[in-house]
Amino acid sequence: MTKIFFSQFNENEVRKIVDCLKFDSSGLINVIAQEHTTKIVLMSAYMNREALMQTLRTGDVIYYSRSRSCLWRKGETSGQKQTLVSIFTDCDKDCLLLDVVQTGVACHTGRHSCFSWVPNENGNWQSIYPIITDPNKLYGEA
Amino acid sequence: MTKIFFSQFNENEVRKIVDCLKFDSSGLINVIAQEHTTKIVLMSAYMNREALMQTLRTGDVIYYSRSRSCLWRKGETSGQKQTLVSIFTDCDKDCLLLDVVQTGVACHTGRHSCFSWVPNENGNWQSIYPIITDPNKLYGEA
Repeated sequence: MTKIFFSQFNENEVRKIVDCLKFDSSGLINVIAQEHTTKIVLMSAYMNREALMQTLRTGDVIYYSRSRSCLWRKGETSGQKQTLVSIFTDCDKDCLLLDVVQTGVACHTGRHSCFSWVPNENGNWQSIYPIITDPNKLYGEA
Repeated sequence: MTKIFFSQFNENEVRKIVDCLKFDSSGLINVIAQEHTTKIVLMSAYMNREALMQTLRTGDVIYYSRSRSCLWRKGETSGQKQTLVSIFTDCDKDCLLLDVVQTGVACHTGRHSCFSWVPNENGNWQSIYPIITDPNKLYGEA
């Protein structure tokens, strides 16, 4: 039987799960988050070993921010957290696919998914999904 | 109106689409392929500018192989090609999500999706999806 809920893993299992994956030369692994109910791909980001271990321990999805060089607790500021349902890796063991429950919107622009831009009739990238939540309300106005 | 089929783009539009994206220091961009009908995430790979331009021109998905340092025409050897339906980028314009029609299986192991491994009850990664096509038949036996 396979385990699909994070809370079933103890510390020994968490280490085994992480140890079998291939992290790149920066210690990172690419992560795709897919919404559990809709199957919408919400975002692509990175984790380091610690981010993945904390995610597996808590069930709250934690990434590694390359721009800020620190753990990024998804939703910590905005409240738009992701809860892990199940986790997949690929045939190369160098990428993760997370099945998540998304609280609110995933994108910092206030859109449900980060993947909201398609080329329009002139070849310009144009957003086709609405802003659901005002970003100023997610992150506070200056 | 947005364009969702590759064949609607002329050469000028192809260049505009590519020029707006952020390729990394190796000239690559991360690409996620999602199956059109099922919404299953099939694989994660990379494209360089040329791979993306050829994909947009032909509708046949072409990646860049980091291990072989060359264009990788998906399905050229195995016949398991991907046909582009629509293309999305994210809020950072540094990742692509392809909506594709997959001919046969996406994974070189003969499984439908590359993301076929989940942690089992002991914390070991275990495949939960069957081998649909014998890999020897995909790539020829030695």
